[in-house]
Amino acid sequence: MKITILILIMMMFLPVLQAENGHNLWLGGVCTGPITIECSKSSTTIDLAKHELHKYWQGKENATISLQIKADLLIKGDGYKLTADGIQANTDLGILYGVYSLLRRQQTEENIKEEIVNPSYELRILDHWDNLNGSVERGYAGRSIFWHGGKDSLNISEQDKKLWQEYARADASIGINGTVLNNVNTSPLILTPNYLKKVEVIAKVLRPYGVKIYLSVNFASPSLIGGLKTADPLNPEVKKWWQDKAREIYHLIPDFGGFLVKANSEGQPGPQNFGRTHADGANMMADALKPYGGIVMWRAFVYNPSDEDRAKQAYSEFMPLDGQFRDNVIIQVKNGPIDFQPREPFSPLFGAMKKTSVMPELQVTQEYLGQSVHLVFLASMWEEFLKSDTYQAGHMSTVARCTDGSIYPQAHTAIAGVANTGRDTNWCGHPFAQANWYAFGRLAWNNRLTSAQIADEWLKLTFKPTISGDSTKQQKNQTEWDVKFLEPVKQMMLESREAAVNYMMPLGLHHIFSANDHYGPGPWWAPKGIRKDWTPPYYHQADTAGIGFDRTQTGSNAIKQYHEPLCSLFSNVKTCPEIYLLWFHHLPWDYKMKSGHNLWEEMCYHYEEGLQQVRKFQETWDRVKPYVDQEQFIIVQSKLRQQCLNAQVWKDACLLYFQQYSRMPIPYDIERPVHNLKDMIAKDMKSQHR
Amino acid sequence: MKITILILIMMMFLPVLQAENGHNLWLGGVCTGPITIECSKSSTTIDLAKHELHKYWQGKENATISLQIKADLLIKGDGYKLTADGIQANTDLGILYGVYSLLRRQQTEENIKEEIVNPSYELRILDHWDNLNGSVERGYAGRSIFWHGGKDSLNISEQDKKLWQEYARADASIGINGTVLNNVNTSPLILTPNYLKKVEVIAKVLRPYGVKIYLSVNFASPSLIGGLKTADPLNPEVKKWWQDKAREIYHLIPDFGGFLVKANSEGQPGPQNFGRTHADGANMMADALKPYGGIVMWRAFVYNPSDEDRAKQAYSEFMPLDGQFRDNVIIQVKNGPIDFQPREPFSPLFGAMKKTSVMPELQVTQEYLGQSVHLVFLASMWEEFLKSDTYQAGHMSTVARCTDGSIYPQAHTAIAGVANTGRDTNWCGHPFAQANWYAFGRLAWNNRLTSAQIADEWLKLTFKPTISGDSTKQQKNQTEWDVKFLEPVKQMMLESREAAVNYMMPLGLHHIFSANDHYGPGPWWAPKGIRKDWTPPYYHQADTAGIGFDRTQTGSNAIKQYHEPLCSLFSNVKTCPEIYLLWFHHLPWDYKMKSGHNLWEEMCYHYEEGLQQVRKFQETWDRVKPYVDQEQFIIVQSKLRQQCLNAQVWKDACLLYFQQYSRMPIPYDIERPVHNLKDMIAKDMKSQHR
Repeated sequence: MKITILILIMMMFLPVLQAENGHNLWLGGVCTGPITIECSKSSTTIDLAKHELHKYWQGKENATISLQIKADLLIKGDGYKLTADGIQANTDLGILYGVYSLLRRQQTEENIKEEIVNPSYELRILDHWDNLNGSVERGYAGRSIFWHGGKDSLNISEQDKKLWQEYARADASIGINGTVLNNVNTSPLILTPNYLKKVEVIAKVLRPYGVKIYLSVNFASPSLIGGLKTADPLNPEVKKWWQDKAREIYHLIPDFGGFLVKANSEGQPGPQNFGRTHADGANMMADALKPYGGIVMWRAFVYNPSDEDRAKQAYSEFMPLDGQFRDNVIIQVKNGPIDFQPREPFSPLFGAMKKTSVMPELQVTQEYLGQSVHLVFLASMWEEFLKSDTYQAGHMSTVARCTDGSIYPQAHTAIAGVANTGRDTNWCGHPFAQANWYAFGRLAWNNRLTSAQIADEWLKLTFKPTISGDSTKQQKNQTEWDVKFLEPVKQMMLESREAAVNYMMPLGLHHIFSANDHYGPGPWWAPKGIRKDWTPPYYHQADTAGIGFDRTQTGSNAIKQYHEPLCSLFSNVKTCPEIYLLWFHHLPWDYKMKSGHNLWEEMCYHYEEGLQQVRKFQETWDRVKPYVDQEQFIIVQSKLRQQCLNAQVWKDACLLYFQQYSRMPIPYDIERPVHNLKDMIAKDMKSQHR
Repeated sequence: MKITILILIMMMFLPVLQAENGHNLWLGGVCTGPITIECSKSSTTIDLAKHELHKYWQGKENATISLQIKADLLIKGDGYKLTADGIQANTDLGILYGVYSLLRRQQTEENIKEEIVNPSYELRILDHWDNLNGSVERGYAGRSIFWHGGKDSLNISEQDKKLWQEYARADASIGINGTVLNNVNTSPLILTPNYLKKVEVIAKVLRPYGVKIYLSVNFASPSLIGGLKTADPLNPEVKKWWQDKAREIYHLIPDFGGFLVKANSEGQPGPQNFGRTHADGANMMADALKPYGGIVMWRAFVYNPSDEDRAKQAYSEFMPLDGQFRDNVIIQVKNGPIDFQPREPFSPLFGAMKKTSVMPELQVTQEYLGQSVHLVFLASMWEEFLKSDTYQAGHMSTVARCTDGSIYPQAHTAIAGVANTGRDTNWCGHPFAQANWYAFGRLAWNNRLTSAQIADEWLKLTFKPTISGDSTKQQKNQTEWDVKFLEPVKQMMLESREAAVNYMMPLGLHHIFSANDHYGPGPWWAPKGIRKDWTPPYYHQADTAGIGFDRTQTGSNAIKQYHEPLCSLFSNVKTCPEIYLLWFHHLPWDYKMKSGHNLWEEMCYHYEEGLQQVRKFQETWDRVKPYVDQEQFIIVQSKLRQQCLNAQVWKDACLLYFQQYSRMPIPYDIERPVHNLKDMIAKDMKSQHR
């Protein structure tokens, strides 16, 4: 009852339509008339569903809608059935999801027919890399929406609650049902009583929207904040500490989701510090959470400064443990074997771990893809990943599906995305970055959606003008909008990720960023004393003989981690897809490509193509000026200009740097570089001292 | 005799061929064999001529050359006659000029036939805007070659003398016969005994090359350093002071050339401070110099912060004085009515002052044309100026010619160029800026040369490889060099000035630079409290109604200062050449141009064209890599890159700024801007505080 009142109070703060500043995300729309809702049940979630229907209905006037909770074996989890009359679901949350689905179809003018809609993954989670001091690791949209830091650390204002509620509504509208509130590089303080009290309040605000709370935990918490001398997972006191902590958390948050753990990775403590395995560590925590239904998401993002190819290490370390994990442990694996690069082949752990639940970790925030400056629609990248065939458990998109449980049963199916949200008015920094949040949610719900479908939906929800007046005129305006705005902008979105690959690191190049900010080019970057697997030359391996990382039998043999026929396909330079060429092979500069160009020329043409693509995006955007709110138009126009400047820097830096080794001219039919290599290197070294 | 020894000592320091660092200018070449020189006369200048012949001869081996001083009425001044056997002249200097001419023709493989070659102007002078503290106003090639400043102010090292001698040789090789050693904004200290002693030494080093010394003098010198209470030119004590000073100077430097004066201009003192006219001031000085054959070059570069159009003021102030100047006064007039802009119509004073000697002042240093960064060959601009018809005394190129003396006799004919030299190894900062020094000298000697001829000569002298081996191969290499290097690079040079006009200020736009550094764009630049005729908005007059400075009858009527038919031609918007359109007219943005585009579109296409031209220059240069010394190649390549970046900034700044007024889209078939107007404005404002 307390919650209901809270929600009702919060409703009063729901923002008026503010399309112009981007705060409303894809959640606009103007109600077209009164409707009648038939529903025998009441709950905060059902009430929300009704509220949304009344407020944003865009169907026939005076319609009657039925919302029905009724068991149906074909409806899975929080899935729902759309019918001519309304929505049927097994759960309250299913009803809410159904309502958002109905409203979306109305706004996008999708045909509404009877249909059962079930989620691809049971757990659809956003990981926030938000630090308790209020900063966001790899965040480019302002400070944390959850944490303030400083003396306001534990304060909670009405403003905060309003923001959390808006956040939860946005999540629910696309099917996200979990959120990790803090960074994987985490302070142990998150588990102290004061912070847990704040987490309890956040949980209350998010609960009606079906968004469960998870926390990143520091493996050394028992010693760091618990007063113990060790955090050894086999130590009874340590076990007890975690059991007590679990009880404490569930007392405050009965539906708490569980822990996310980054252990023995990039300096974070973990079970290996005590001579134990990842399984020992994960299981100990899983046991503590088990009584309450909690899970442990244990990250496989591990690599040591050893001589072993970084791309191999997660597989090497985790495969031997397959079968040793509790059933409430999920191994969280980044989509690629290195780290959220503009393009990677999928991680070989997918499909390989057959006795363990494995969840993909995608990155919604554009750490390596132009941050909040570049327009890069990531759905294309995720679609490419989800469509990969592991040749072990069907396509990637079915690996983690309940429906495929007959082959490799997984106790849990899940997917995570590293969030791109912050306190910026428009949540994500770049107006088009909202599309990546949207796309992650949509793919987490339905991993068979195409990026084209998602872009289409998002553009209609975000930019489509409300049309009134006579229907002939409506029809005409509608067609004009489709032709002049929707199609070109969709095309731009769909091309944007390939453009970024082209101007940043085409042909399988990876991790050639400058320094640790992962924004600009730095193929030369290798300060003295730094781990060599943190430097670009480790990844591109360029010399006068050629370029690329040899991961075949003659090199690191990482290729062996892929199941046949992929292993052979990638190994053979003739069959290896050219998009992965330098990921798997070190090749001479004059290697003949399928186009007829040699490798050096091909590389030049890719960089040039990337730059020209961005120029084209600029033109596309300038042309749609009449169809966009002017504030949003200018923000995007300005960012595209910066992106174009950056694409030029990327092209110039990489071509001039690699030309030192290729010793061949840049083909004369492409634009000449306009920056000098030495200036770019000097600027780079200076930026280290920022 | 003392001088001869000095010269011989200096000969020992003549540099070895150093083509790679650009220090040798256009003065290279390798001797093809011993020759015999017949010459009955000996002098330091004749000895120099012989030395050059012996050292750089590239004609037939064992040839016999005669050098003959013999009066000939057809040979004027220091002109010369080339014959099959050698060189004939009236003066020693004529012989030296003839030798340089012969060597140039050998190197450029010009046909050598009997010919009398006379100079277009009697006085061919470089004005150095060198300050006594060692800095150079509008200098972009290092510090002054004459002045050190600081405690070394008056020191003279052997290094200095070597540099001055190299400088004099370069001047002589192209016919320059005078040099003003100090800035027109001058310290009065130049006339104190210590400085004059240094000037005496410089004069000694330059004398054998026929380069006369002139000094810029501060009009207030009598009061500033002479202890007088006034500098009133009609005051007897002041007159006497100048007479005494002239005697003192000529005692040290018997062939001293005279004074250059910037008076009552941009804060410099002048006769108007005492209620006198420019004629009063100039004549007083002329009287003091007259007994020794000295002249006064009195600058017409005057404009007050009044409401009168700046372009009109020099004419308004000087025309009434026509007929009042002594015959050893020359009025030095900048080529255009404003100030060395990328393009101006000629100053209406040319041809108008019929009873006064008038000399053009050109600017060799690229103050307004990209300084030492942009490749801009100025000969095209000067050719355009020299070919202008004043409709009063024939074409511009004949206005100041002795040969036309029958119509408007001028006591003296002269031309000045503001030098672009400094202590940089390559003298001029940009390797191609040397071509402007070369071109100024060549045009001062022969103002009918085309820029194409000059570019051709300079490229051959500067870049042509010495070819040895069998003659078939020679022929082939020769042809290849012509086709692959000479023609494209010449084309680039010849197009370069129009490119700069396109990306900086096309269609008659002028003076829209940022701040006082005259480098980047600043059409918005107008800090509070500054003279409005120092701000770009004064010149472009852009508003939503249109753009351009109305100088017709409806505006400032500056157009009246031009003689018919020019006045009518410029006044009528239909006949006004489009290159001067916005110089003379304020026109609406939708004004229809000859191309069919409206004014706004035409402007956009010009800016775009400029950028694309620089891109093309980059390609041209990259392609000639095999034909150029690598150090020089990289310097030019690097500067072209910067030029391209700058052209982009110019285009973006001007289009985005003016678009605020035109309120029309930038045509979609040109590249979109990549900079944001507000960033450019902000950067600009910051650069003020450098």
